[in-house]
Amino acid sequence: MHPSYTQQEKEIIYRVIRERRDIRHFLPDPVPEPVLARMLEAAHYAPSVGFMQPWNFILITSRELRQQVKASFERVNQNEWAKLTDDERQALYSRLKLEGIMEAPINLAMTCDHRRDAPFVLGRAPMPETDVYSTCLAVQNLWLAARAEGVGVGWVSLLEKREVEKLLGLPDGVELVAYLCVGYPVEFRSKPMLEEKGWKFRMDWRQLVFENGWGDPVVSYSLTSP
Amino acid sequence: MHPSYTQQEKEIIYRVIRERRDIRHFLPDPVPEPVLARMLEAAHYAPSVGFMQPWNFILITSRELRQQVKASFERVNQNEWAKLTDDERQALYSRLKLEGIMEAPINLAMTCDHRRDAPFVLGRAPMPETDVYSTCLAVQNLWLAARAEGVGVGWVSLLEKREVEKLLGLPDGVELVAYLCVGYPVEFRSKPMLEEKGWKFRMDWRQLVFENGWGDPVVSYSLTSP
Repeated sequence: MHPSYTQQEKEIIYRVIRERRDIRHFLPDPVPEPVLARMLEAAHYAPSVGFMQPWNFILITSRELRQQVKASFERVNQNEWAKLTDDERQALYSRLKLEGIMEAPINLAMTCDHRRDAPFVLGRAPMPETDVYSTCLAVQNLWLAARAEGVGVGWVSLLEKREVEKLLGLPDGVELVAYLCVGYPVEFRSKPMLEEKGWKFRMDWRQLVFENGWGDPVVSYSLTSP
Repeated sequence: MHPSYTQQEKEIIYRVIRERRDIRHFLPDPVPEPVLARMLEAAHYAPSVGFMQPWNFILITSRELRQQVKASFERVNQNEWAKLTDDERQALYSRLKLEGIMEAPINLAMTCDHRRDAPFVLGRAPMPETDVYSTCLAVQNLWLAARAEGVGVGWVSLLEKREVEKLLGLPDGVELVAYLCVGYPVEFRSKPMLEEKGWKFRMDWRQLVFENGWGDPVVSYSLTSP
C-alpha cells in the first residue's frame, strides 16, 4: 500500500489545477500582504536545478513604470494584430482583452538569475536552460496558490522583453521570465477565455501520448480515462 | 468578500506544494494506468501561451532505450564530477544519487512542439520561448498531481539533450524539455535531498523580493510572514 493523499484531498488538488485561469479582468481591491506572502512562499517551494532557487520577485507598484510597460504591450499588440490576414480572426483578436497592467493591484515580474551559485550548479551545465525552467515551475506554484486564495493571475507575454528588462534595471545575467498581473478577478470563468471566445479549443491529451519515440502510439499503457 | 477555497482546502494545496520532492530512489511497483492518466491530464490543464498546448508525453518503456539514456547520463555525470576542485565537495557529489532511469517503472519525456498552431500563436511571437515555458508549467502540474497520488517524480537534467532527442526520434521543431523518472518512492523526505545532505540550503524568500527594479527593497508591501 502506497501512502497518498486521501480521495477528498486529491480532489481538491485536481480541482485547483482545473479551476486555475489566466485572468485579464481585475477588481481594484488590494490583495492583503499575508495573501501575497503565501503566494510568494508557494512559488519559492518550487523545485530547482541543483536547488539553485534562481528566481526573484519584483513588485511593480510605480504607476509611471507600469505605464511604460503598458506602452510596450501596446506596440507589440498592434504589431501582432496586423499580422492576421483573416478579417474575422482579426476582429476576434481585437475583442480579446490580453492584459490588466494598469487595473491589477499588483504587477509582479519573476526573473531568473543565471549567476546564482556560479560557477557550479549541480545538474545545470548539460542543460543550462534548466534554471529558467525552474523559474517557470515557481510561476505555476504561485498561480495555483493564487487560485486557492481566490486571486487571479495573468501572464503578459506581449511585451518587448529587452525593453522591460531595461525598465526594471535587470543586470547582465538576469533574465525576465514572467510578467504577471495579479489581483482579485471579476470572475473565474469555467473555461479559458480563448476557448470560450472560440479562438482555440482544448486538445484531447490522449492524442499527445507516445511510447518510446515521437509519433509512436502507446502500447504498454492503454491510458484509459481516469 | 472574495470567494476563495476554504481554509482547510487551502492548507491541502499548500501542503502538496511543500511536500513535493525530487525523487531518485524508486520502488519497482508499477504505477496503475488510471493514476498515470490523472497525472497526465493534470499536466494538460496547465496554462499555455495562446492556448497552444505545445507539449507531448513520451513514455519510455523499452529497456534498451533506457540503457542508452542512462549511458548519456553517465558520460555527463562523470564530466560534471571532474569539474569539482574541492575534494570534500567532490566526495559528497559522488554520494548523491541523481537519477532513477533504470529502476523507476516509468520514464517520461515531456517535449515542446514549436510547430504547433504555426504560424500564428496568440501572444508568442514577442517571447517565442513562452511555448517551452508553458511545457514547464505542465511539468509542475504533473509533479504536484503525482505527489497527491503518492507517486514520486525526479527530473534528470544531467543528459546530452541532442543525444536524447535523437534517441526519441524528435523531428525538427520539437524540443526535449524534461526527462522525468516516475514511480513510487522509497520515501518522501521531509526536506530536499540536497538540503538534507548539506549540498545547499533553502534561501529566505523575503530576501528575493524587490520593488520597482532590481535590488530595490520593498516599500509598499512589507511582506510579513504568512
